[in-house]
Amino acid sequence: MSFHDLADQLMSRSDELAAFSEMDGGITRRYGTPPLKSAMELAAKWMREAGLETEFDAFGNLIGTYAAEEGSAESRPFVIGGHLDSVRDAGRYDGTLGVLSGIATIQHLHNEGKRLPFPVQLIAFADEEGLRYSTLLASRVWAGLPLDDRLEQPDEDGIPLVDAIRAFGGDSDALQHRETPEILGFLETHIEQGPILEQEDLPVGVVSSIVGSERAWITIRGMAGHAGTLPMTMRKDALAAAAEAVLAVEAVGRETEGLVATVGELYVRPGASNVVPGEVRLACEVRHASEETCVQALAEIRTRIQETCERRGTTLVWEPTAGYRGTAMDEGLRARLRDAIAAEGYRPLELTSGAGHDAINIARIAPVSMLFVRCKDGISHNPAESITAADAEAAIRVMVRFLDSLVSS
Amino acid sequence: MSFHDLADQLMSRSDELAAFSEMDGGITRRYGTPPLKSAMELAAKWMREAGLETEFDAFGNLIGTYAAEEGSAESRPFVIGGHLDSVRDAGRYDGTLGVLSGIATIQHLHNEGKRLPFPVQLIAFADEEGLRYSTLLASRVWAGLPLDDRLEQPDEDGIPLVDAIRAFGGDSDALQHRETPEILGFLETHIEQGPILEQEDLPVGVVSSIVGSERAWITIRGMAGHAGTLPMTMRKDALAAAAEAVLAVEAVGRETEGLVATVGELYVRPGASNVVPGEVRLACEVRHASEETCVQALAEIRTRIQETCERRGTTLVWEPTAGYRGTAMDEGLRARLRDAIAAEGYRPLELTSGAGHDAINIARIAPVSMLFVRCKDGISHNPAESITAADAEAAIRVMVRFLDSLVSS
Repeated sequence: MSFHDLADQLMSRSDELAAFSEMDGGITRRYGTPPLKSAMELAAKWMREAGLETEFDAFGNLIGTYAAEEGSAESRPFVIGGHLDSVRDAGRYDGTLGVLSGIATIQHLHNEGKRLPFPVQLIAFADEEGLRYSTLLASRVWAGLPLDDRLEQPDEDGIPLVDAIRAFGGDSDALQHRETPEILGFLETHIEQGPILEQEDLPVGVVSSIVGSERAWITIRGMAGHAGTLPMTMRKDALAAAAEAVLAVEAVGRETEGLVATVGELYVRPGASNVVPGEVRLACEVRHASEETCVQALAEIRTRIQETCERRGTTLVWEPTAGYRGTAMDEGLRARLRDAIAAEGYRPLELTSGAGHDAINIARIAPVSMLFVRCKDGISHNPAESITAADAEAAIRVMVRFLDSLVSS
Repeated sequence: MSFHDLADQLMSRSDELAAFSEMDGGITRRYGTPPLKSAMELAAKWMREAGLETEFDAFGNLIGTYAAEEGSAESRPFVIGGHLDSVRDAGRYDGTLGVLSGIATIQHLHNEGKRLPFPVQLIAFADEEGLRYSTLLASRVWAGLPLDDRLEQPDEDGIPLVDAIRAFGGDSDALQHRETPEILGFLETHIEQGPILEQEDLPVGVVSSIVGSERAWITIRGMAGHAGTLPMTMRKDALAAAAEAVLAVEAVGRETEGLVATVGELYVRPGASNVVPGEVRLACEVRHASEETCVQALAEIRTRIQETCERRGTTLVWEPTAGYRGTAMDEGLRARLRDAIAAEGYRPLELTSGAGHDAINIARIAPVSMLFVRCKDGISHNPAESITAADAEAAIRVMVRFLDSLVSS
């Protein structure tokens, strides 16, 4: 099976996985749901066909192991990862590409009858996007990082995480006593989710670091009232104040070089067409390569919203929530990726990741690396996510060379 | 039982009905729900204690009848009404006051052993607010007005009205063959939901007309994308555009004398903190005593939102929905209400209603009237809705005089 065929297989498998969804006419796979389980079971079948032994861990992560060559004393695996959960109305490559490119890479070794002097593990994480619970949750659990009070966290239907784990076939007791896994290192191949590789006419690139983020939940309280009888001059409309807040977030994002600032969620209460809104809750996040810039931007946003609320007679409740720190990729692994890319005949470009990834958690326990693949128009978290089979092939070739380079070290 | 006692009873019954709710710590009673049914059954019990015979019609409206004096040839009733459904997180008087003041008024007649030369009907409508289906639905059905395609309309869980009617014990087939009821006239007593009676230091007032409204659903489509990787300059953020739309609605409301303009509902898609919003849907309504002003205001709002969307590269879908026309109250019934108020020693002030009421539908088949009762700070559609027992007593006294005046005509 040529690299070309492996890439074609990857593309058709991406389409197959896209059929597993909680929504009609689009992809939504939250942690703990039957469509995610079905997607993972199909991925497990493909893993086994590629020579991996598969199991589900206590959180429901799918773990495939490609055994080391006979007689090897090294029991620590090198880990390749991706995730199969998704955002709402997602594209078909975010997360999935890490799993499918990992399968293709190991299938190439398997087809060649080649084993490495260490095991290779391939993990399909069950919750990276955090659409149902918290972001990067599965890799946090897997890496043995503390769960704090996350087990009791409810989803939007009030179901606590601990119940979702059980319903997904996991074991929350086992999770809490999980030890830190010992691994040689970590690689995730992911779509870039930005426009740079396309602009530079390159199929792949090496991630230098993941930028940090700061987040807050913002609640604006005004006074609900009858939309027909409350004169404009007497209103304390929480949504009108929130509209100014949304525009303040956007303005700060535009004013600061390299910053992105987003309100992605906003809820109106009581939420009836004939009632002046009494309360609005919205999620704000900022991201920048500099943590200091993130903190300053969020403070500036808070100041502006506070001014809006004072002027309008509404009140502001500001709750900072877990963002993540900027995370550097391991220099040794980066160098190997650069060399592998150069050996395939491409310029080895390094770029930062504006998005968070599981490597943030795994960097706490091992050297981590990421390979980015060009995606059309930089579009992601959107059904229009798109890559080419040629770029997928380049990624698989680079991954095989990268694994080879680990052997020769 | 004195008027004072009847008013105290009305106040405590308002508190009792407030306990029937779909939500914890507040009042929400949508059409077809068990809490609404329980509230109606308790009201039916009170009606029977006040000498009325009760039944539920094919929609689930509660109808009590206080029979005419013996030997009367008049079979057409005078109808007193109110509604027991509510908005989300509602107050305890909107709608309920019409039912409870009607019970108190007829209980007074009953206690005095007095019958009128015509029947008096008391209706507790099961859907006025339209939180689940459409506004003023129950009175539309009751008045025999066409339902058009409303039977197939789904609620937010996809349950069509026809199923909700059946689950509520109604009969949708019977509804469709309903004849126009023949009635002598209609009165609803309602809280003002505005500040005028309080400013004028009056317990009650006579409604001259209900102002009209115009409504539209507005959909703004941008492009969803990853909140971490999509640069600010490349975004088509549907929520940022919608924020400008919300502020445009407010601005037009403020610029036009006597106009109120409101966005009470707004939904963000896909609605995740790490995704730039791709689509926002919002409800806009304007109300003014002049229909022409309503139409002009909505057109102005549309023009401004269109400009926003063009500037931001987003698209606008504009769907006008059913508002209602301004409705004049019957001059003869208004005169009787003014006389009854004057006879109680108060200045008979007339005022318009900024809110819609069932009288809009019933005006299509009979003379209609409304009595407004002062409410604290003009607050309504809010848990802080508040009236005094003294004002409730004034309303009951006026209603008794009003019914008396119909006899002497």
